[in-house]
Amino acid sequence: MAQEKKETTSSGLEWSLNVEDGSSKILVQEAGLATRAWLGLKGLFLKVRKFLEKAYDIGVNDPRKVVHCLKVGMALTIVSLFYYMRPLYEGIGGNAMWAIMTVVVVFENTAGATISKSLNRVFGTCLAGLLAFGVHWLACKSGEKFGPWIVGTSVFLLASAATFSRFIPSVKQLFDYGAMIFILTFSLVAVSGYRVDQLFELAYQRLSTIIIGTSLCILVSMLICPIWAGQELYALITSNMDKLANSLDGYVAEYFNPDDSNKNLLAYKCVLNSKASEESMANFARWEPAHGCFSFKHPWKQYPKIGAAMRSCAYCIEALNSCIDSENQAPEFIKKQLSTACLRVSSNSSSIIRVLAETIKAMKRSSKIEFLVEEMNGAVEELQEALKSLSELSNPPACKNTETVSSAAMETIPLMEVMPVVTFTSLLIEISARIKGIVKAVEELAKVAAFKDAAQDKCKENQPNNRLEQQGQTKDEETMKVLQRV
Amino acid sequence: MAQEKKETTSSGLEWSLNVEDGSSKILVQEAGLATRAWLGLKGLFLKVRKFLEKAYDIGVNDPRKVVHCLKVGMALTIVSLFYYMRPLYEGIGGNAMWAIMTVVVVFENTAGATISKSLNRVFGTCLAGLLAFGVHWLACKSGEKFGPWIVGTSVFLLASAATFSRFIPSVKQLFDYGAMIFILTFSLVAVSGYRVDQLFELAYQRLSTIIIGTSLCILVSMLICPIWAGQELYALITSNMDKLANSLDGYVAEYFNPDDSNKNLLAYKCVLNSKASEESMANFARWEPAHGCFSFKHPWKQYPKIGAAMRSCAYCIEALNSCIDSENQAPEFIKKQLSTACLRVSSNSSSIIRVLAETIKAMKRSSKIEFLVEEMNGAVEELQEALKSLSELSNPPACKNTETVSSAAMETIPLMEVMPVVTFTSLLIEISARIKGIVKAVEELAKVAAFKDAAQDKCKENQPNNRLEQQGQTKDEETMKVLQRV
Repeated sequence: MAQEKKETTSSGLEWSLNVEDGSSKILVQEAGLATRAWLGLKGLFLKVRKFLEKAYDIGVNDPRKVVHCLKVGMALTIVSLFYYMRPLYEGIGGNAMWAIMTVVVVFENTAGATISKSLNRVFGTCLAGLLAFGVHWLACKSGEKFGPWIVGTSVFLLASAATFSRFIPSVKQLFDYGAMIFILTFSLVAVSGYRVDQLFELAYQRLSTIIIGTSLCILVSMLICPIWAGQELYALITSNMDKLANSLDGYVAEYFNPDDSNKNLLAYKCVLNSKASEESMANFARWEPAHGCFSFKHPWKQYPKIGAAMRSCAYCIEALNSCIDSENQAPEFIKKQLSTACLRVSSNSSSIIRVLAETIKAMKRSSKIEFLVEEMNGAVEELQEALKSLSELSNPPACKNTETVSSAAMETIPLMEVMPVVTFTSLLIEISARIKGIVKAVEELAKVAAFKDAAQDKCKENQPNNRLEQQGQTKDEETMKVLQRV
Repeated sequence: MAQEKKETTSSGLEWSLNVEDGSSKILVQEAGLATRAWLGLKGLFLKVRKFLEKAYDIGVNDPRKVVHCLKVGMALTIVSLFYYMRPLYEGIGGNAMWAIMTVVVVFENTAGATISKSLNRVFGTCLAGLLAFGVHWLACKSGEKFGPWIVGTSVFLLASAATFSRFIPSVKQLFDYGAMIFILTFSLVAVSGYRVDQLFELAYQRLSTIIIGTSLCILVSMLICPIWAGQELYALITSNMDKLANSLDGYVAEYFNPDDSNKNLLAYKCVLNSKASEESMANFARWEPAHGCFSFKHPWKQYPKIGAAMRSCAYCIEALNSCIDSENQAPEFIKKQLSTACLRVSSNSSSIIRVLAETIKAMKRSSKIEFLVEEMNGAVEELQEALKSLSELSNPPACKNTETVSSAAMETIPLMEVMPVVTFTSLLIEISARIKGIVKAVEELAKVAAFKDAAQDKCKENQPNNRLEQQGQTKDEETMKVLQRV
């Protein structure tokens, strides 16, 4: 009850609510209208202020969002010219509305999404228009009695079929919007054709306005501060790699030296949650023309695979958490014995991830990778040796007359106490194994995209890396803020 | 190159492609047009067949999708009546198109999504219409010189601001579509108002057709075989719980008895990947009226929290994988020593998850939960005891004159070999700790949604559980198929 009261007070609408509990209703009414109105206003003001602060933060953290908004405003203002200028107005008539509608609906944040929606709109409209024309012609031939039935049935069947096609993953991925536009155009043309006789005129007008609208959107989104889905995907993957490497280093350092407070500990959570954006960006990137260092046929589909390999690593890092928070902590001297080897494995692993990020950034195969993987394997073996020597410590070779100290040490380390450090080590070894999965995925990308030395030189002219890194950094900070709030 | 050739052959478009490598171009041309056309047709036919088979599978696995498509077809056919029937045609005129457009754009799979989009459309249109009317009035007062500037500037500013608002998470969650409709309507009314003088007439017509369209959509989606986002969310969460429990049981059984092949092993992957759908469904469910056992104010926001707690468990199950595939396997007798305790922890843990699923399904607090958690804690302690006795085995209490057998056994079990089983056990203990997080989340839901005994009786009348379970099962099978293909 108390909660409900609080809710109603903060929204300032309490007098219109049906409070079932009579007593509390009276309580609320006692407060006096003016006081409550004042409290409501104050609450509203605080909410609005918080909202605006949040909006400001979003704009400051990613100024490109603001640029995108200005681009939408610009495109809409330009398209309005079709109404203002008389010659164009005469030519396109009331249908100029379609151009405005196209701009509003089609303009998306990334160039790829805009192009995808534009092409979907144009082809969906064309296909549906042609089909609707056929149905209309058939309906006219069938006379007044059967015509409406033919139109009605065809609308029912095609709308149902097109709606169903949107459930099929391959269609949904590429033509979801096109299917919707198909239904829309088909219904409009088939039905309105029954009344209006200027079907060709209508089709021509609609198509031309849509083409004007989509061309404008594509041009504005590609020419003015373009945001390429491909480049975003590429930045996301590389920055996620850096985050993964930082988290891995951070966790291992945290475990062995809890005093070194590391801010980047939770950065790997971004890797866990970026599946959906990776996939949608890879989809949109396929529609984009060549830009920056990316050719038109750049294998975008490979990036989500790299993302999946990274996620499989991140799951293990998530599990590392448990060892750090565990109540049973291994005695310091055991930790010390393993720390050098563990730190070596983690630094080798994270440097592999960083080199892979570098490989993708520079689009140049690194000669170091094989050597680094070898080194990581060596470090893992060394860690396993350290574990063996640890087991020798707790299992002194048979029962010679060992010193009392050693025997005491032996008895004070039950397996239970070694458990967290053993689990930690074992997860670390698993992480290093999963990193090989990332290496494989990146190597496949390098193969399919034909990464080579020459690519680096070509890329150096544009040098998008610095900007992307910077941008990655602001996003990092944003993420850390969000995580800290959580 | 070989790959490129294969690609072009299967798409049947090889003669129009620019092959940079001359030699392979000649090779392709040698094949003969007829043969290549035949191969292309065959490939196309196979692709179409595969596509249709996939579509058929989707329909069979979830017949409600087919029903949804028929509902869309029906709503569109009904709305077409506005064109066929003369009296209505006279009344609503060319604007009846807006009703068709509304149905196409607003009709979504779940009732919640349809209601959300409908309300967004109506309120976005109203708000934008009022604002646009104000701007139009101001523009008219300012004369021919300043009028266009006022309209243009207002379109630019409001479109930019509304586009920006779509980046703010709280707005995006609830009013994304409304913001788009706001931009659309404002632009159309403000700009067209500059030409057409019947602004009130236009606004009235547009609003009435939109209300007709949205009402029709809401009615059809709620009255004919409704698919409630809330019920879907509830089914997803409970079926994911069962999957998690099955996977956990399966993994532990697989580790200790590798011969028992278990199909449900990978079911937990669904839990890892359902974050996005949980969140979107929780958003849509908030718009739905009371249905089934759910009141209007049902705390839908709580379900994604339960989902998050389950995911944190699933991450650990993912890490369990590594122990099963590990090269180092503990000797059988050590495994045997731990198996009883491990199996007890896992069966206790999974039965807790199942009881939680039951709690949500029946909307009734279970009296067993506390007891089961106690029992799980007991099983964990027992497992820790078993580990202790294991460490005694490898660390025989100091150096009495132990028998040779024991000393030999001790030396044959280095820590390296015990490592996987220790890691497995430690992850299992961590999973049981994380299950307490699920218990907490479900208890919070039970508290906020006021689960009690009476709720169960109310629910029994509708009994959606059987249908939901069945549906969950077909989805399970679908998932398993997908996973097997991967």
